[in-house]
Amino acid sequence: MATIDFDKAGGLVPAIAQDADSGAVLMMAWMNREAYEETLRTRRAVYFSRSRNRLWRKGEESGHYQEVREILVDCDADTILLKVHQIGGAACHEGYQSCFFRRVEGEDWKIIAEKVFDPKAVYKK
Amino acid sequence: MATIDFDKAGGLVPAIAQDADSGAVLMMAWMNREAYEETLRTRRAVYFSRSRNRLWRKGEESGHYQEVREILVDCDADTILLKVHQIGGAACHEGYQSCFFRRVEGEDWKIIAEKVFDPKAVYKK
Repeated sequence: MATIDFDKAGGLVPAIAQDADSGAVLMMAWMNREAYEETLRTRRAVYFSRSRNRLWRKGEESGHYQEVREILVDCDADTILLKVHQIGGAACHEGYQSCFFRRVEGEDWKIIAEKVFDPKAVYKK
Repeated sequence: MATIDFDKAGGLVPAIAQDADSGAVLMMAWMNREAYEETLRTRRAVYFSRSRNRLWRKGEESGHYQEVREILVDCDADTILLKVHQIGGAACHEGYQSCFFRRVEGEDWKIIAEKVFDPKAVYKK
């Protein structure tokens, strides 16, 4: 069985989520073996949150799950690419489709996207 | 001036290269501050090679440079997305357009791409 090299990477490997339809790169997060195996099994993206130090079932709070259409592995077997259908249309907790909503322009960063949702309405704190 | 949070990440942040035209995710590598600043200045992708422990000017050996069209930064300011024009048509040292040339299918990985070049002819070792 082919397998991701979690050990080489200290237990966590980068996982990139790409919109399966538009091709937009939505976000980058981390997976440990448990997150990867649950993702394979459930076909919903599960990451490992370094800040919370626990599994992070993407959408568990917002309802914005990622349905996994394809799982790709890179040449070094230490990075994962998920092609997903993003429920709610936005992957970013700030309300944008993609976490990559800022472009570097000289010394500044310019916001190049429109919010899909209002974070205050989605994350009730 | 807006800036990447290299310190939070221990000096290295993930950098994803995406083909600016096709939208294909080509590869994931790492940048330190020096690599990032040289990328900004030269508009060619420069990474930091963890295995070689030095700057890695992508294409320095193969001639397959990445011309940087756009640089995007994520919500946490700790991941970079480069939109690039890939010289030679292939980012992967194994000769594929993308390093993500294998798809997870059950217990196996299936190669889903064709090689663009022969690595033996490009990397003369």
